[in-house]
Amino acid sequence: MYQDRIRHPALLSKLMTAKEAARLIEDGMTVGMSGFTRAGDAKAIPAALAEQARRQPLKITLITGASLGNDSDGLMSEAGLLHRRLPFQSDAVLRRKINDGEIMFIDQHLSETAEQLRSGSLAPVDAAVIEATAITKDGGIVPTMAVGNSASFAQQARQIIIELNLSAPLALEGLHDIYLPASRSVREPIPLTSPEQRIGAQAIHVDPARIAAIVITDSPDSHSSVLPPDRETAAIAGHIIDFLKAEVHAGRMGQELLPLQAGIGTIANAVLQGLIGSPFKGLTMFSEVLQDSAIALLDSGQLEFASASSITLSAAMHEKFMRHIADYRSRIVLRPQEISNHPEIVRRLGIIALNTALEFDIYGNVNSTHVDGTRMMNGIGGSGDFARNGQLSLFVSKSVAKGGGISSVVPMATHVDHTEHDVDVLVTEWGLADLRGLAPRERAPLIIERCAHPNYRPQLRAYFAQACREGGHTPHLLMQAFAWHARYQAEGTMFMS
Amino acid sequence: MYQDRIRHPALLSKLMTAKEAARLIEDGMTVGMSGFTRAGDAKAIPAALAEQARRQPLKITLITGASLGNDSDGLMSEAGLLHRRLPFQSDAVLRRKINDGEIMFIDQHLSETAEQLRSGSLAPVDAAVIEATAITKDGGIVPTMAVGNSASFAQQARQIIIELNLSAPLALEGLHDIYLPASRSVREPIPLTSPEQRIGAQAIHVDPARIAAIVITDSPDSHSSVLPPDRETAAIAGHIIDFLKAEVHAGRMGQELLPLQAGIGTIANAVLQGLIGSPFKGLTMFSEVLQDSAIALLDSGQLEFASASSITLSAAMHEKFMRHIADYRSRIVLRPQEISNHPEIVRRLGIIALNTALEFDIYGNVNSTHVDGTRMMNGIGGSGDFARNGQLSLFVSKSVAKGGGISSVVPMATHVDHTEHDVDVLVTEWGLADLRGLAPRERAPLIIERCAHPNYRPQLRAYFAQACREGGHTPHLLMQAFAWHARYQAEGTMFMS
Repeated sequence: MYQDRIRHPALLSKLMTAKEAARLIEDGMTVGMSGFTRAGDAKAIPAALAEQARRQPLKITLITGASLGNDSDGLMSEAGLLHRRLPFQSDAVLRRKINDGEIMFIDQHLSETAEQLRSGSLAPVDAAVIEATAITKDGGIVPTMAVGNSASFAQQARQIIIELNLSAPLALEGLHDIYLPASRSVREPIPLTSPEQRIGAQAIHVDPARIAAIVITDSPDSHSSVLPPDRETAAIAGHIIDFLKAEVHAGRMGQELLPLQAGIGTIANAVLQGLIGSPFKGLTMFSEVLQDSAIALLDSGQLEFASASSITLSAAMHEKFMRHIADYRSRIVLRPQEISNHPEIVRRLGIIALNTALEFDIYGNVNSTHVDGTRMMNGIGGSGDFARNGQLSLFVSKSVAKGGGISSVVPMATHVDHTEHDVDVLVTEWGLADLRGLAPRERAPLIIERCAHPNYRPQLRAYFAQACREGGHTPHLLMQAFAWHARYQAEGTMFMS
Repeated sequence: MYQDRIRHPALLSKLMTAKEAARLIEDGMTVGMSGFTRAGDAKAIPAALAEQARRQPLKITLITGASLGNDSDGLMSEAGLLHRRLPFQSDAVLRRKINDGEIMFIDQHLSETAEQLRSGSLAPVDAAVIEATAITKDGGIVPTMAVGNSASFAQQARQIIIELNLSAPLALEGLHDIYLPASRSVREPIPLTSPEQRIGAQAIHVDPARIAAIVITDSPDSHSSVLPPDRETAAIAGHIIDFLKAEVHAGRMGQELLPLQAGIGTIANAVLQGLIGSPFKGLTMFSEVLQDSAIALLDSGQLEFASASSITLSAAMHEKFMRHIADYRSRIVLRPQEISNHPEIVRRLGIIALNTALEFDIYGNVNSTHVDGTRMMNGIGGSGDFARNGQLSLFVSKSVAKGGGISSVVPMATHVDHTEHDVDVLVTEWGLADLRGLAPRERAPLIIERCAHPNYRPQLRAYFAQACREGGHTPHLLMQAFAWHARYQAEGTMFMS
């Protein structure tokens, strides 16, 4: 059953149960696990480690690609296994423990974790746990539905534990392109100049002697949980399509636009969905995660090629994808997240970057991560890699949340993940504000009138007018800047009645 | 006198006075001028344009490399010439008009202006005004002490006005390396893999027909105004040198360190000065501006090569530099600021980035630009280009200002230019906080105990402790976060007596 997937004969002796393999992980270790946005994550070892941590002292630093599926982060958090976690997460239990100060979370640009490991800025990975489709004759690890940081972990770890997932079709071989930059003193330019180009190997090559265990699994990835488009997300998509049409009309790009990046989540998914039937043709994606909408765009024929680090799909789309994998494989490539998000490549290609904001302020500073500047949601993810270096950086949000009690457009962002320097366009269901080439005092009226919910516009206008009377390049009233958030905490609404 | 500097004979007919040349600039135009941090700026046209604006309606958008010398920004501001100004400035009059909302200032990463012009995100440059040492036989413009954005302006402008500065020694020829990336659809990797490499031409090549005027000048650059090291800046330098020694000891870099970048100003100058006599040898710089300290480090033999976009020196150092220009020319190269600051190159080389903070908060967010989050000082400059992409991002500041009334370490930064994601190390005269791999709740005690002035530590500890009781990944008390700044405005001190 698995013999055709372990093609290096000596490795057959490394087969063991998840429980046995988990014993290779010792208290205090740094563990690098595959998995990027609920795709390609190890399924058995996290549960076995959680079980082990309930019986004996076991605390680890866990580094992944991004978020894990299968409630693994929740299980490991509840078991007290996680001391330190990076670079991204999206689990409710883990989130609570991070916000309670029980688990130390390091929120990183997703392109940078591998670089920091390579340079020694982070402690080295002791053990790598990597989900694989197969192991080639020469010890090459073929990933599953995500590459993430797996190649960096495998390159660096003293011991490697493989989860060989029998539910991953062998036809995934050839989907991946494994290339990592060399250490800095001898680094050459990354030769990638277009989304479809392949510059590396089909598998992660390691010395087979470092493969310490192989565990057989057969659970599929967790399905993605994005919601279908609604009236607001459809309106956001409409504003963006109109804007892109105008860019084409102005001669700033062709009908094929520029390579698209879309962040994870419902809004970004809806925006891409909205491109189906638009006049744009010959599109490409250079993104970190492909969701249902990317596959639908490939099916529509408008998207020609998609480069990413991971694919996370709904149950129905997953079934379809696997049925036609050989076809999709010729139009998709999965890369290490260091490459899918690399500033060098993003700047070279000139991406259109679409990411989601939690809130943004009247001057264009974006908060992607912290409720009330204090409580972590998920993490910055790759949004900064793309927003800083792309040609066009768009941030989208619904204008209000909690039934209108929270305005996403605020006087001052309570936490800044993306500064005004890195934000070109803001979009809500009400409209789009093109901030390019504008000073803060020009940005504010545009953001208020185009993006804010009409209920909140008078309050925003009043804040801006009073702040302008006090003066400044970016006029603010420091003691009133967060009064809206305080009002929400006290009264359950930011609205001043 | 100037004939050996205008080697394309047809161009001799373009000689005119500054007043005549200034008439080529019309109301509403976008003008790109040479000049980066008081070096290589046009001297005669700004004054002539200011004069013209006093007599007739004349408002322009002015784009430069960075700040100008010769009080040009002040003169042009006072004359009402400037409608819009980007991407950086450091003039007192201009600053006041920006903060009064009279002049629209767009504060940009210095690597990005050229990219935004190329992609059409900014309106095109109508006229370029470029200081030159000479014009070659084939119409190549040889810059003076800065390259800045001059090559991009010259490439794009419909008409080019040259200020031929006879005080610039002809021996400057060969100092420059002019390379610009192609537009995005056909862009290749930038082939630069080490600071000393030359990848372009010695001059800015344009069609001579676009050179509309040549004005002869002979005023030198304004001298730099950095102050000599004092007790605090020497202490900061000492902490950084100890830190770098530890990095070498840990095997994370060799005695030659990594290429150094140092921001403009007194503190950065003092830190570099402090490297003289340190055990580090075979150093290189990959920076945007070279100040006196870089020349002194070259003289000491410890610095082998320096790459930058501009050289700004004190009177004494300028005199020495010009006397030995032929020697320095073999160890210095000046590049377009798009290349000196390019994310692709900074990430590839792995820079040690040293930049100055106005204030930073207990979680490591840095404000480089806005007093009280409101009033612009100079601009973000290139600090973000280097801090985001370098291997080590250090920010330095004295712990207090205004005789102790202002603490540079605050509960929450009132404006964020560099997020916690991009800040590795913070340094004041009291000590150094190494934030790599730490979560916000671990960063805060370190920053408070290592960097804050002892007078302010109890207040900071109290804020952090109370915020932690309320919870959160990055604990904050929104209504108290800016109370320190409000207290300073009301009582003239942040200190709670």
